[in-house]
Amino acid sequence: MLNQEFNALRDRRKFMQQMAAGAVGLLSMTGWNQVLRGADDRRLLVHSNAPMNAEPLLPDLVKSWVTPVDSFFIRSHGNTPDLKADSFRLSIEGLVEKPLTLSLAELGQFQQHSVTATLTCAGNRRSEHSRIKAIKGVQWREGAIGNAKWSGIRLSDLLKKVGLRDSAKHVWFEGLDTVEDGGKSFAFGGSIPLEKALSDREISPGALLATTMNDKPLTADHGFPLRSVVPGYIGARSVKWLSKIVVSDRPSPNHFVADVYKLVDTGDLLEVAENAPIYRMPLNAAICTPTADATLKAGRTAVTGYALPPGVPGVSIRKVEVSADSGRSWTEAKLTTPASEFCWQMWSAEIAVTSETKELIVRATDSRGDSQPETVRWNAKGYLYNAWHRVPVQI
Amino acid sequence: MLNQEFNALRDRRKFMQQMAAGAVGLLSMTGWNQVLRGADDRRLLVHSNAPMNAEPLLPDLVKSWVTPVDSFFIRSHGNTPDLKADSFRLSIEGLVEKPLTLSLAELGQFQQHSVTATLTCAGNRRSEHSRIKAIKGVQWREGAIGNAKWSGIRLSDLLKKVGLRDSAKHVWFEGLDTVEDGGKSFAFGGSIPLEKALSDREISPGALLATTMNDKPLTADHGFPLRSVVPGYIGARSVKWLSKIVVSDRPSPNHFVADVYKLVDTGDLLEVAENAPIYRMPLNAAICTPTADATLKAGRTAVTGYALPPGVPGVSIRKVEVSADSGRSWTEAKLTTPASEFCWQMWSAEIAVTSETKELIVRATDSRGDSQPETVRWNAKGYLYNAWHRVPVQI
Repeated sequence: MLNQEFNALRDRRKFMQQMAAGAVGLLSMTGWNQVLRGADDRRLLVHSNAPMNAEPLLPDLVKSWVTPVDSFFIRSHGNTPDLKADSFRLSIEGLVEKPLTLSLAELGQFQQHSVTATLTCAGNRRSEHSRIKAIKGVQWREGAIGNAKWSGIRLSDLLKKVGLRDSAKHVWFEGLDTVEDGGKSFAFGGSIPLEKALSDREISPGALLATTMNDKPLTADHGFPLRSVVPGYIGARSVKWLSKIVVSDRPSPNHFVADVYKLVDTGDLLEVAENAPIYRMPLNAAICTPTADATLKAGRTAVTGYALPPGVPGVSIRKVEVSADSGRSWTEAKLTTPASEFCWQMWSAEIAVTSETKELIVRATDSRGDSQPETVRWNAKGYLYNAWHRVPVQI
Repeated sequence: MLNQEFNALRDRRKFMQQMAAGAVGLLSMTGWNQVLRGADDRRLLVHSNAPMNAEPLLPDLVKSWVTPVDSFFIRSHGNTPDLKADSFRLSIEGLVEKPLTLSLAELGQFQQHSVTATLTCAGNRRSEHSRIKAIKGVQWREGAIGNAKWSGIRLSDLLKKVGLRDSAKHVWFEGLDTVEDGGKSFAFGGSIPLEKALSDREISPGALLATTMNDKPLTADHGFPLRSVVPGYIGARSVKWLSKIVVSDRPSPNHFVADVYKLVDTGDLLEVAENAPIYRMPLNAAICTPTADATLKAGRTAVTGYALPPGVPGVSIRKVEVSADSGRSWTEAKLTTPASEFCWQMWSAEIAVTSETKELIVRATDSRGDSQPETVRWNAKGYLYNAWHRVPVQI
C-alpha cells in the first residue's frame, strides 16, 4: 500500500505533467489524498483539505536536519485564516498586573530570540497504532514531525512585561481559526504550565512567540503572522494564528486541552476527567529509507531515518539501533546531525540483509537509558505511538 | 529482616506479658516500630505515631475477605482529631444552588447505603519500590490495604439535594485534621471528578459519605464521625474526619491533590504541574503466607494472598498465578472469595517447591487481560508499585 503510493509519486516529472493537464481527478480516483501543492518542492500527502492536514513523504523528510517549510507537516483543526499583518493584534490578559494588546510592530520591540526545535503531532504514527485496533482521527504515518528554526520573542519576556499575579499557574493560547465540533464553533486553544513558560534555558526558551520559520515569515498554514512554539511539547500546545494569551490558575478549558489531547483507554467522560492534558512529546524514531515494501538486494544496505528525544529537559538521544532479523541482533546507527535539546537527530546505518529478512526495525534509546518499547498499549485517541518502527521489505 | 520481625511477634502471649510489665521499651530498642495497640486483636506494625501510620502483618490480613477494623491499615497525614458527634457538622458549598450545613442526625435522614470496598494507600509496597532507589515517605510493606463494609449516604444524593450549577466539574473533600508541612498548617484534602461522584452503580456508589465501618461507628483512626469512601480510587481520595465538601470547576488546590499524589520521574515543579492527580488504584497482588524468609520443606506448599483489581469500573480479577521457579512456570491459584467491583479477592494455591526454589512469586491478571508487570518504572514519590510480588524462602 505504502509502496504503491510512493510509486504513484515516483515519476515526479510525469506527475507534474498530469497536474498541468488537469489530471488531478486521477489521484482522487485512487482513493489516496496526495496532491502536489504549489511548487515542485512541495510534495505532501494530504489527509484532509478542510481542515488542512498533510505530511511529507519520508524520503523527503530525512534529507535535512532543518525541515524546509514546504516539507513540514501541516496540522490544522479548523480553517486556515487569511490574516493581515497590519491589523493583527495579540492580547494578554487574566492573572496579570497590566493587560496589554500589542501590534506586530510592538512585539518587534522586544528582544528577539531564535530556537531550532522539533514539532510533532501527538497523533504521529496513528496509522500504525490503528492496526492494533482502528482509531478515529487523521491517519498520520511517520511524517507528522518536522524541525525548524523559529524566531520571535520569549513568552517569559512578555509575562515579565505584564507582571504575574501570585495565583498564576498556567498560560492559555488561543488562535484565530474556527473549529467546528459537536455543533459548536470555537477557536483552537492550547495551554502550558507556568513553569514551562518560565523555563528558559541557554538554548531553548520555555515558549517562543514566533513570527518566522526558517528565517521567513510564517506561512498561512503554519500560523501567520504569530504562533506559539513550545519546545518539547506536542504540537497541539504550539498554537497557530495566536491572538490571545490568558494567564490563569488552571489549564485552559478549551476542548483541545480539557477533552481531546489525553491518553485514555476508553475515552469515557470519567476517564477524560481523571487524566491530565498531554504535554511532553515521546521518545520516538522512524526509518525513512528504504520505504515500506522496497525491494532490496541481499547484502549491506543503507538505512536512514530520524530519532526524537522525549520532551524532557536536558534529555537527548543516546543511541539508535537497527535490526534486519526481527530484533535478534541490532546494529548501532551513526547519528549524522548534532544533538540538541527538544530536537530530532538524523541517523544512518549500514546493515546486512539476507534472504530471511522480512522487515527492518529501528529503536532509539535516550540519555536516561529509556528505550522505545517493542509494543505500545493502545489508547482510545491514538496518541504518542512510539513502538519500534518496522518497515516491511522484500529481498 | 521481615522474618526477624515476625519472629519478634511470634509468641503473642509472651509479648503481651512484656507489654503488661511495661516492657515496651524493649521494642523501641530493637529499632522496629511494632506495637501492640489496645486489644490483643490489634496487631499492627506502626511506621509512625504522629501522624499515625500503621499496617497489619500479612498472615493476619489474609485471614478474611472483610478486614476487621483492628487489622485495617491506618494512614494519616496529620493529627487524629477527637471529635464529638453532637457538635459535628458537614458543610457543602461552592458551585451548588443551595449550600447546606448538616448535623449527623440530618445526614441520617438521607437514604442509607452500604458498600464493601477495598481501600489501599497509593504508597502500598513502597518498601519494595525503595529497593530500586530509596524513596522518602512511609515505607509501607504489602499491608497498606484493607477491605471493609462501609455504610452511610451516597454523595450523589447530597449533590442532588443541594443542586449542581452547570460549571460543576469536581468535588473537593476537606477533613478536620491538621497537617504540618513546609511551615504551614492546613487540613488534609481530596478531590474527585464529578463524573465519579455521580457514577453510582448497582453495587458501588461513586462515593459514599460513611459513618460506619463493618457495621460499627468509625473509630477515630478511621475518620470518626464521617469520612468519604471512594471505591476504586487510592485511599487519599477517601478523606477522614470529613467536614467540608466544595463543588468546583477544577480539582482541589489542596497540597495532597495538587502536589503530592502524582506519578512523576523527578518531582520537579514543572513535572508536578504537568501531571494529573492519581485517582485509580492499580491492579496488584501479594503473597501473605508463607512470609519472607520462611523455611519450607521441599514438596507441595500452600501459598495464600490477596489480589486487587484496578479501579476501573466493571473490571475484576481473571486469574492469579504463582511461581516457585523464578517465573519459568506458573500455577494458577484458586480464588477463594467472591469477585466484586473495586474489591480484593483472597486466593490460595498449592505449589511444588524444590531445593532450587529461591523465592515465591505471584502475579494477577484482570478481566481486561492486563497483567501485573514484572518490573515497574521507579517514580519519585513511590506510588502504585505493583510489580510481581516476590517472597524469598529457604528450603
